[in-house]
Amino acid sequence: MTLDIGVIGVGMIGQEHIRRLDGGPGGSRVVAVADADAERAATVAGQLPAAKALSTGEELIASDAVDAVVVTSWGPTHEPYVLAAVAAGKPVFCEKPLATSPEACRRILDAEVAAGRRLVQVGFNRRYDPAHRALKQAVDGGAIGAPLLVHCAHRNASVPPHYTRDMSIADTAIHEIDELRWLLGTEIVAAQVFTPRKSSRGGELQDPLLVLFEMSDGVLVDVEVSVNIHYGYEIRCEVTGETGSVQLADPAPVHIRREGAVAGLVPADWRERFTLSYDVELREWAATVAAGGPPPGPSAWDGYVAQVVSDAALRSLNDGGRVGVELPPRPGLYAIPTAS
Amino acid sequence: MTLDIGVIGVGMIGQEHIRRLDGGPGGSRVVAVADADAERAATVAGQLPAAKALSTGEELIASDAVDAVVVTSWGPTHEPYVLAAVAAGKPVFCEKPLATSPEACRRILDAEVAAGRRLVQVGFNRRYDPAHRALKQAVDGGAIGAPLLVHCAHRNASVPPHYTRDMSIADTAIHEIDELRWLLGTEIVAAQVFTPRKSSRGGELQDPLLVLFEMSDGVLVDVEVSVNIHYGYEIRCEVTGETGSVQLADPAPVHIRREGAVAGLVPADWRERFTLSYDVELREWAATVAAGGPPPGPSAWDGYVAQVVSDAALRSLNDGGRVGVELPPRPGLYAIPTAS
Amino acid sequence: MTLDIGVIGVGMIGQEHIRRLDGGPGGSRVVAVADADAERAATVAGQLPAAKALSTGEELIASDAVDAVVVTSWGPTHEPYVLAAVAAGKPVFCEKPLATSPEACRRILDAEVAAGRRLVQVGFNRRYDPAHRALKQAVDGGAIGAPLLVHCAHRNASVPPHYTRDMSIADTAIHEIDELRWLLGTEIVAAQVFTPRKSSRGGELQDPLLVLFEMSDGVLVDVEVSVNIHYGYEIRCEVTGETGSVQLADPAPVHIRREGAVAGLVPADWRERFTLSYDVELREWAATVAAGGPPPGPSAWDGYVAQVVSDAALRSLNDGGRVGVELPPRPGLYAIPTAS
Amino acid sequence: MTLDIGVIGVGMIGQEHIRRLDGGPGGSRVVAVADADAERAATVAGQLPAAKALSTGEELIASDAVDAVVVTSWGPTHEPYVLAAVAAGKPVFCEKPLATSPEACRRILDAEVAAGRRLVQVGFNRRYDPAHRALKQAVDGGAIGAPLLVHCAHRNASVPPHYTRDMSIADTAIHEIDELRWLLGTEIVAAQVFTPRKSSRGGELQDPLLVLFEMSDGVLVDVEVSVNIHYGYEIRCEVTGETGSVQLADPAPVHIRREGAVAGLVPADWRERFTLSYDVELREWAATVAAGGPPPGPSAWDGYVAQVVSDAALRSLNDGGRVGVELPPRPGLYAIPTAS
Repeated sequence: MTLDIGVIGVGMIGQEHIRRLDGGPGGSRVVAVADADAERAATVAGQLPAAKALSTGEELIASDAVDAVVVTSWGPTHEPYVLAAVAAGKPVFCEKPLATSPEACRRILDAEVAAGRRLVQVGFNRRYDPAHRALKQAVDGGAIGAPLLVHCAHRNASVPPHYTRDMSIADTAIHEIDELRWLLGTEIVAAQVFTPRKSSRGGELQDPLLVLFEMSDGVLVDVEVSVNIHYGYEIRCEVTGETGSVQLADPAPVHIRREGAVAGLVPADWRERFTLSYDVELREWAATVAAGGPPPGPSAWDGYVAQVVSDAALRSLNDGGRVGVELPPRPGLYAIPTAS
Repeated sequence: MTLDIGVIGVGMIGQEHIRRLDGGPGGSRVVAVADADAERAATVAGQLPAAKALSTGEELIASDAVDAVVVTSWGPTHEPYVLAAVAAGKPVFCEKPLATSPEACRRILDAEVAAGRRLVQVGFNRRYDPAHRALKQAVDGGAIGAPLLVHCAHRNASVPPHYTRDMSIADTAIHEIDELRWLLGTEIVAAQVFTPRKSSRGGELQDPLLVLFEMSDGVLVDVEVSVNIHYGYEIRCEVTGETGSVQLADPAPVHIRREGAVAGLVPADWRERFTLSYDVELREWAATVAAGGPPPGPSAWDGYVAQVVSDAALRSLNDGGRVGVELPPRPGLYAIPTAS
Repeated sequence: MTLDIGVIGVGMIGQEHIRRLDGGPGGSRVVAVADADAERAATVAGQLPAAKALSTGEELIASDAVDAVVVTSWGPTHEPYVLAAVAAGKPVFCEKPLATSPEACRRILDAEVAAGRRLVQVGFNRRYDPAHRALKQAVDGGAIGAPLLVHCAHRNASVPPHYTRDMSIADTAIHEIDELRWLLGTEIVAAQVFTPRKSSRGGELQDPLLVLFEMSDGVLVDVEVSVNIHYGYEIRCEVTGETGSVQLADPAPVHIRREGAVAGLVPADWRERFTLSYDVELREWAATVAAGGPPPGPSAWDGYVAQVVSDAALRSLNDGGRVGVELPPRPGLYAIPTAS
Repeated sequence: MTLDIGVIGVGMIGQEHIRRLDGGPGGSRVVAVADADAERAATVAGQLPAAKALSTGEELIASDAVDAVVVTSWGPTHEPYVLAAVAAGKPVFCEKPLATSPEACRRILDAEVAAGRRLVQVGFNRRYDPAHRALKQAVDGGAIGAPLLVHCAHRNASVPPHYTRDMSIADTAIHEIDELRWLLGTEIVAAQVFTPRKSSRGGELQDPLLVLFEMSDGVLVDVEVSVNIHYGYEIRCEVTGETGSVQLADPAPVHIRREGAVAGLVPADWRERFTLSYDVELREWAATVAAGGPPPGPSAWDGYVAQVVSDAALRSLNDGGRVGVELPPRPGLYAIPTAS
């Protein structure tokens, strides 16, 4: 079956996902787009062989021409669009975050549970990165014994002017929050944020941060979040176990010897580093929902939990101290974790 | 436009390419298969949504249902199938080698030149490997000054029983032959094969080999060919220039600390190492020919030259000494090198 | 001048230091040894060209034949031996710790200040490791901008049966305590110890630990202490600054490709990893004091401060929470930090 | 016993060796120096506690005050000084080359054989490099099966103006010549030099070279010699065996992340890269001959063989083609290879 897709929000990441989905696996096509900027929607639609620009996301979701929805609009609009897609019974891929508060995520969760079937996938792309998968495979395969500690670093060369203090957690560290749950197969039970000496490059931001997460089995995780580190974009992770450790290797494909050094290039940003993981994520999603299956990736439950943990970490950042994470029982609809 | 593809030869690599092409970019589909083993053809066709098994490759090429042809059959059959596809005016992707002798390749070249347009692409996948592309980008960008020497190694953990002495060149080193022409943008003008101490693991084979290639501008290349090296599959390349060097990095995505060592896993074979490059190669081919363009990758000329150089290296292996490579003028049809 | 040295405590590390000092730089010789085990002292002396075994450390320190003293006996005996050497006006090299409590260290400090000249050097060997020196050189040279965060790991394959809970701090992390002060040029103002999931390999030990240190300028340091990690001995350190980072490279001198992996061997223990740093440390000490200079390495002040910080970390381990570090003013005798 | 040493030739390397030997192991002292530049000899002697400047090397060798001789003068003077030391029955450490022709080396060999005991050690320092020792240990320990191929590179950032065409072999590749014999435990039976495209940075020099060496058991070695490669000084070596390979790791002690790259610094020259190996070489030599033993390192036989092979390689460079190496029987005096 050919999957006809509508995309709400056609900024940079929306356009990249369109490139992945139009003429993609199973003959998926983008047949409709919508954007708060109507002109941009028209321009993007005009470059696609089969797409119309519609006036609103709501109209797009309601359109009979649309089989499945991709939400890549501004974060605060995610909740209404995802709720509308669930109400319409259409599969919906929503970029992270699922919604901007635990309560909003909870409303989506409740709606999906009420609908009785899984329709929502959240765009936590790191689960699709081959290196992170190799990391998980080594841990799961017992190469290092039981995991005890995890060391992470999440580094951006710089952030745009609109980037706020809270975004170091809610927009940046949220990737580690989802990754850790997936990598270790346990829940985060507490968060504590430490504020080291501030970088002079970060203006008003509290940059960097050191975040500690406690997992339900006692595994302790430290995450460096540096968002103005200039040299490049880098994601680091090492899991220390009882008998060894496993860590992400530098991803540079070649080593260059010049001017007194042997060097590997560092990616400039997350697009360069994670393009392949987005490719796999979107193609797998399109192929699976085209075949009538439930979305194969991170669920609304995963989106909800990430937001609850992010909220706890934000409280620690703002008020200090260790903040516990309280989760409701996992609804039966999400009893079986998603494959990815 | 949807591209309807016929695949001749559905052994392992044929089946892998089918997975890449059916339901692939631009709505490409596999609509017909043929194989010397009719039962295998039927089985493979039965697993595809839209494919029929046809009796012969010739019938497949002639079928009105087939827009483009993929040849992944046994090497000696490549020539007649590719000639038939050219005669039928259909784009044809042929796994390497284009044909098993310079003369056979020449006949294909002549047929294509007579047809007046490029229809043939040869499956030299290494041009599509991201690490090799980064290598070329560094050289072309001037990071190391003018290239002077190249050091390569092509290592297989083991080879199947039917692997013969000549295959170290014709089947294995042929990848380096094409890669060097593409990487350096010059032609190979001589080959010389040295036979070091034989591995006790190689039976009757002359394994390993050390092959020297001279490029038209004097750049000298040494290639280690080891086809029974047990530890794994590995492709190495370093280009030494006037002011520095660039080399492929180890591709291991993670480093594991255990049992007294910090280790990166080595791929078991070429499928594991180069899957992504095949994905890109086949998708780019399908998308381009679906859009009516000439095949974007290695041309019949590239396939022909590789065979001429391979032949020279084989003469050196068998008779000793330095063997010069004589090439006819490049036909105008191939005046502009292919993009990849 | 030839330096005639007496060594108190000739267990393993004492014997290694004797090997470094006898017939060493400037014609240094070991002329006397003492040990709680008189038979061991006699055996060791018998293997040296110019050494006598004396009955007690006190006798050795008092001997006119002895120009300088090395203390490599059991920790609790360090204080009286070092005090006696200071009283005798003889240079004394004391293995870490200087003494086993802040108060004991303070008494040594006071004695040295009263004596009015520096005689004591403490065996913090990490300052002499070429890799740690390269780390400091990069930080001091501004390669990464102002330092903001430090990530360390101190891993032992295993520990002997007598190793106790407190030793993870007082015996193991104490190396990081001195290293951080030296590396960053600032003081530690607080310590906090976290206890992750316990390794099943550590028996009653709380293993691993995650220790946070705050430096006086706000730099934050996390230290993993794992003392039963089986795979080998490893010291890791990365300093994250405003514009980049610098970290210790894996010290393996060769990479071996075998059995599906490319691997570097990990040292089995600290002797293997740090032999060269001990060589430099002891030779520099002997050459300098032979020439009449003050001991060139870590001073009694450094030994005292390390013990104060260690004590704070132990209180955090035992009672929880963040524990501040209070230091008295630095006596004028130690106004100029030691060169190493 | 204290070893009193005379040093002939006190240019840069002579002065460095003096630093290693004066006040060194076993109380070795430098008691006499001589140099073609009398003023330089006087200056150097004046900086040493116990040394006199003598007028000639011959006088130095004859002096009763001198127990052992170090020859670090200009290559063409090595032969007479070494012959004089042998005639005087004094141990002599001679920097490579032992002498500048096979015939000259042969005369030394004959003199030493006639004297009936080994007195000569040649300064092939690479045997003392910890990384090269780890390489040999892996090969000898069977980690990679029987060796079959070796890939080397010898790279200098630049060479001084007096560096001539022949020196790429006689001064530079001679290190690999000795290293290969030591590493593999076999003799070189043929050499062949290839001249790739010339570097525009090398003026009249034929730079780089690719040298092939055949070992007596068929192992084949390729050596890149690049002496103007600008980026730094680097020595590479990989041994490929039947089941794996072992290679020198990059020696950078730290990795620095800055300006878009993760980089390890490359040594500027051989002094920086091999200081430690020279330390070990000279100290071991002084300690051993002080104790009355034969010189522990590379013998006159090793110096002679290196010169014979170098000569063969030079003939190939100048006349082309493969040049066989003919060696006389190894005299009984050298029946047991030296330990290092």
